[in-house]
Amino acid sequence: MVAERAFTAGLAQFFGNHRDVLVGIGDDAAVVRHRGRAGVLCCDPVIAGVHFALDADPALVGRKAVNRNLADLAAMGASADWLLVSLALPRGYPARARTALLRGLRAAARAAGALVIGGDVAVTPGPLSVTVTAVGHLNGRALRRCGARPGDTLHVTAALGGSLAGHHLRFRPPLAAGQWLAAQSPVHAAMDISDGLLLDLQTLLQASGGLGAELSAAAIPITAAARRRAGGDHGAALQAALTDGEDHALLWAQAGGRELAAGGPLSARARRPIGRVVRTKGLWLVDGSERRRLHPTGYQHDLDAR
Amino acid sequence: MVAERAFTAGLAQFFGNHRDVLVGIGDDAAVVRHRGRAGVLCCDPVIAGVHFALDADPALVGRKAVNRNLADLAAMGASADWLLVSLALPRGYPARARTALLRGLRAAARAAGALVIGGDVAVTPGPLSVTVTAVGHLNGRALRRCGARPGDTLHVTAALGGSLAGHHLRFRPPLAAGQWLAAQSPVHAAMDISDGLLLDLQTLLQASGGLGAELSAAAIPITAAARRRAGGDHGAALQAALTDGEDHALLWAQAGGRELAAGGPLSARARRPIGRVVRTKGLWLVDGSERRRLHPTGYQHDLDAR
Repeated sequence: MVAERAFTAGLAQFFGNHRDVLVGIGDDAAVVRHRGRAGVLCCDPVIAGVHFALDADPALVGRKAVNRNLADLAAMGASADWLLVSLALPRGYPARARTALLRGLRAAARAAGALVIGGDVAVTPGPLSVTVTAVGHLNGRALRRCGARPGDTLHVTAALGGSLAGHHLRFRPPLAAGQWLAAQSPVHAAMDISDGLLLDLQTLLQASGGLGAELSAAAIPITAAARRRAGGDHGAALQAALTDGEDHALLWAQAGGRELAAGGPLSARARRPIGRVVRTKGLWLVDGSERRRLHPTGYQHDLDAR
Repeated sequence: MVAERAFTAGLAQFFGNHRDVLVGIGDDAAVVRHRGRAGVLCCDPVIAGVHFALDADPALVGRKAVNRNLADLAAMGASADWLLVSLALPRGYPARARTALLRGLRAAARAAGALVIGGDVAVTPGPLSVTVTAVGHLNGRALRRCGARPGDTLHVTAALGGSLAGHHLRFRPPLAAGQWLAAQSPVHAAMDISDGLLLDLQTLLQASGGLGAELSAAAIPITAAARRRAGGDHGAALQAALTDGEDHALLWAQAGGRELAAGGPLSARARRPIGRVVRTKGLWLVDGSERRRLHPTGYQHDLDAR
């Protein structure tokens, strides 16, 4: 099996680098310097049958296509400016659905203060696919995946798990939180939780030089949807929060014992740590007096599966 | 039928505008001002079974995916800087093909002095699809579609037609020609020929306020491939040059009677007009003493076809 992460990890080296590329392949978005100014760019698709169900509301598909990319900008601490949209429509895709899709794209763009400035439309023999490119700018430093240190506390902006029950189409990109966190000096590293907390946390720890983390079971915030789906099974609900993915909350690492500024967009809950970074590789869950090893599973594309 | 052009023509109004958008939806690429600097952005996909054959060499597919977008930058007179690549790979897409595809992307990027800085990979139930976003910059003004005037002469950078016989995968984006033309004050308007000379010329004339054009049959440059495919039938070869599409040459309109500077990347042939802009709407072909009306056909996606 060639997993998505192994594949993309090699791409930075494959494509090379340039002194104006401040952040290249391997973070949530790229940061480039253009005549002294930093631009932030990312491009992710959503595909029917992969990222949303075939019968999903087209307006919500449009919204997700935009917000998935805005969540990547948010994770860099960037503001959103411009969007390009490439639509691949199945043959005979209904006019009404097309309009709803465009309305969803526009609504999500407007909510973030961004504007659709270009793109393309094609008819495809395959499923509906919407590829959005988002371009933004930094107001200060970029939040990177690579700055976590042993002793840092770990935090998330929102409750996790149960995305398929609804919020995987309806999440709001945490742009305000990302920009605010970028201005907080105790924040060492951050990333968008797209593939599940465990997989994304492992990515952040690897990017930070091969560290580990200890999560506190009681501190992981779990969505009402994940609890509902798990019935009364708290273990199942917790597992969903750790691995479901498509949360599009921000995960960040913050200098242990240091406080962030008062005010700002974070909830009181988000200010409380869900765990801490440790020097030893691996992920552990502390649940009362029990401490067990976690395996970093979550969603990733298997490029070899048939 | 809702044709692609009718659909995209409404998008600029649908998505709205902003004072920092110098060129929005409806040209080959968008131009935005970011803190005083002009950035040029475009995003087009290539999809198996639509833009290339299922058995096409993946290296050439990668090359086309990049060059198709670079041709759009070229048509604006821009230089290429950065590329984002979103790959949708069919399940079980072979590792060797994946590598060839990446090499094709990289080779085309390097040839233009551009760098792949980000993107995404996903596995799709549909056909192979490669969506490239290209970001560049202007060195002076942008070449627009909208500046042609009656009396302008019309020109193309390269011979046309027969793209499916080979060059639709192998064309080189006319970046040097586009940048050079942007610096020539007699050049009033330009665009990338992607859907066939007639259809794209009509687009340029409509963007310029609803003008017409007279083409000279003897002056239209025809590729050797189009001549070969037509056998000895000169009419068929000419028709191919007028409508085949995927030429990715530049079409431009230039003040009648004015010469461009000596030197530069244009061939002597490209400096000779293929026709002229007239005040009356419509396209005409002048062939010796005969003058006949042309119908603007070419390639466009029919969004309603089943």
